[in-house]
Amino acid sequence: MHPPTLRTVGSFCARRSYQIRKCSSGAAYVEKVKLLDYWKLQDSALQSEFPRSRLLLMVDKRVLVQKVDGDIKMIENGVSELRKKLGDYGLIFDQSHSCLLDAVPGPQNDLIPLFGTSIDAAEMPDDSPISKTDILGELGGSLGGKFTSLRTAMLAMNDERQRLLLAKFQSLSRWSSIYRRCPKCAAALKMRVSKSGAECVTCQRVYYPTLSPVAITIVTDESNENCLLVRHRGSANGVFTVVAGFAHTGESLAECARREIAEEVGIFAHLVQQLNMSQPWPMPDSSMMVAHRAVADRNQEVVVCPDELETAQWFSRDQVRKALETTVADPFLKGLPRTLDDRQRLHYIPPRGAIAHAIIRDWVQGKF
Amino acid sequence: MHPPTLRTVGSFCARRSYQIRKCSSGAAYVEKVKLLDYWKLQDSALQSEFPRSRLLLMVDKRVLVQKVDGDIKMIENGVSELRKKLGDYGLIFDQSHSCLLDAVPGPQNDLIPLFGTSIDAAEMPDDSPISKTDILGELGGSLGGKFTSLRTAMLAMNDERQRLLLAKFQSLSRWSSIYRRCPKCAAALKMRVSKSGAECVTCQRVYYPTLSPVAITIVTDESNENCLLVRHRGSANGVFTVVAGFAHTGESLAECARREIAEEVGIFAHLVQQLNMSQPWPMPDSSMMVAHRAVADRNQEVVVCPDELETAQWFSRDQVRKALETTVADPFLKGLPRTLDDRQRLHYIPPRGAIAHAIIRDWVQGKF
Repeated sequence: MHPPTLRTVGSFCARRSYQIRKCSSGAAYVEKVKLLDYWKLQDSALQSEFPRSRLLLMVDKRVLVQKVDGDIKMIENGVSELRKKLGDYGLIFDQSHSCLLDAVPGPQNDLIPLFGTSIDAAEMPDDSPISKTDILGELGGSLGGKFTSLRTAMLAMNDERQRLLLAKFQSLSRWSSIYRRCPKCAAALKMRVSKSGAECVTCQRVYYPTLSPVAITIVTDESNENCLLVRHRGSANGVFTVVAGFAHTGESLAECARREIAEEVGIFAHLVQQLNMSQPWPMPDSSMMVAHRAVADRNQEVVVCPDELETAQWFSRDQVRKALETTVADPFLKGLPRTLDDRQRLHYIPPRGAIAHAIIRDWVQGKF
Repeated sequence: MHPPTLRTVGSFCARRSYQIRKCSSGAAYVEKVKLLDYWKLQDSALQSEFPRSRLLLMVDKRVLVQKVDGDIKMIENGVSELRKKLGDYGLIFDQSHSCLLDAVPGPQNDLIPLFGTSIDAAEMPDDSPISKTDILGELGGSLGGKFTSLRTAMLAMNDERQRLLLAKFQSLSRWSSIYRRCPKCAAALKMRVSKSGAECVTCQRVYYPTLSPVAITIVTDESNENCLLVRHRGSANGVFTVVAGFAHTGESLAECARREIAEEVGIFAHLVQQLNMSQPWPMPDSSMMVAHRAVADRNQEVVVCPDELETAQWFSRDQVRKALETTVADPFLKGLPRTLDDRQRLHYIPPRGAIAHAIIRDWVQGKF
């Protein structure tokens, strides 16, 4: 049988062992995209791939990672090895706990699925001599790493591909655990194996994972030498960030940025521009953060929305540069100030995994 | 009683007659945003405003418009006058059929809500001498305009504020008609008066109107003198447009653009940039279109996705300029080619209401 050509895409994907041909990286990219699209829609084809898939793992919403060269990386396992190791701790899983994340090179120079598997550990009985935390610690060790919180992993990961995979993993796991019944008619939803969609068994309406656009915006003054940063209620001491909020229907992203600035800090931005930067973010719900910069008259009185923000203040470029440097030198924010007095001073900006970090960094560096 | 100040926002909104003060347009903008935010969340406050609100109207998903100076504009009515005129045709409505769109100047120099009211007309009995279409025609006339399809209105409207209001109207009407039951537990959802959210009466989970990010992308070659346009299956004869598709979780918008180009036309774009332009669009589902440009090697073989596209072709700037001019001169596409031969030739691009039109126009004019 001849190897498939680009012309026959659509039928060739059905073959189980799909050869990666030695072609330009562009053509390989196109074929991988088409294979993923095929797997997303074809439940039986993807299901038959499951036994030879690679898996990332979350237990109790904590993700299995290892430290590699000062970075955090998720650990991949094969299905049978993971099944055996989890089985030792009384944990089981199958494809219903798993969402399709990517296509990765397999053992036979072909592409195999990469799934994210998310399971819950049972609570230990009250009289158990060991706690669930102990068990997760042991299980993590037996798998060559440890379980860490989703938030820590997302914020501290340096490798963009890892961060995007984790964002997808959490978004699809969460969405597929919520969308069980049709919002229109309350009948059961049949979830795709890939978790990329679900169809109502009664009215046939199809639902897709929700992904909400967010405008995330750095506000500068007209000189572009000062920017307005905010402190959210309950955020870590000394951490300031930019303004962000969900887009509403009936407004552009730029209009969303302008509205959120008015709602959160009570000022009017006369100029709003989209920056060439976006990032999916899975917490608390799945969102698509789109970067903006806005310009506002610094003489306006800042009045923060008290439900969301503790404070909002103008800072000079030098002040923000110092906070950027502190954050880069201490990405896990271990030196967070402990006193109440210090809490409202600018010490840190969000860590490197957040798009807010990149926006603030680019502004400090004079890129816009 | 003193007029409210910006400092007291949060409490002042509760007052029924909220004065628009003579202040800078920036401060008036901020106050309007905060008032809308208040109405969105406070059902009883918004409900009490309903009788004096202004209303836009859809019947059977057709929107009430009039032609003004060669443009299309939605007709606003007061609640009591609309109730009387619809009553003459046996049609009734209340706030449950209505979604909050904006705050507009009221008769007492204050701000009052602008709602969109969407109702269905009952089918006529088979033996009725008049049809539903006749009745809608008459009703439209009695209201000073006519009912037109949502699609026609969205595409042909020139005024951006009108188009954004209509996008919001359709998106909220549609979403609030679908989200009746909790997707997690199937209990009833309690819809806000504004239709900006709904809460499960059992598990208290809150759902918001879905709004899906879309990357919409013009693909050019490296010389930037040619662009690749596509014809969707079932689209009007002779109309070509740019590539677009929904973003997935776990990818940036630029990565979405690259993936959609691979899926739809089978080529790899080595450069993708976000343009400073976005637009909410309500059909078929509510989406946030974010404009991109991509650059691809023109020597790659174009292989269209047969489920979605009829063809994809490279065109020169002059060819596209001509189609742009034809479309601008004939915004309702009345001169669409009728023959099969002509169908696959580039005659038109999407009309002025679509962001695709603006992207193609900006490219023709050499803006990027």
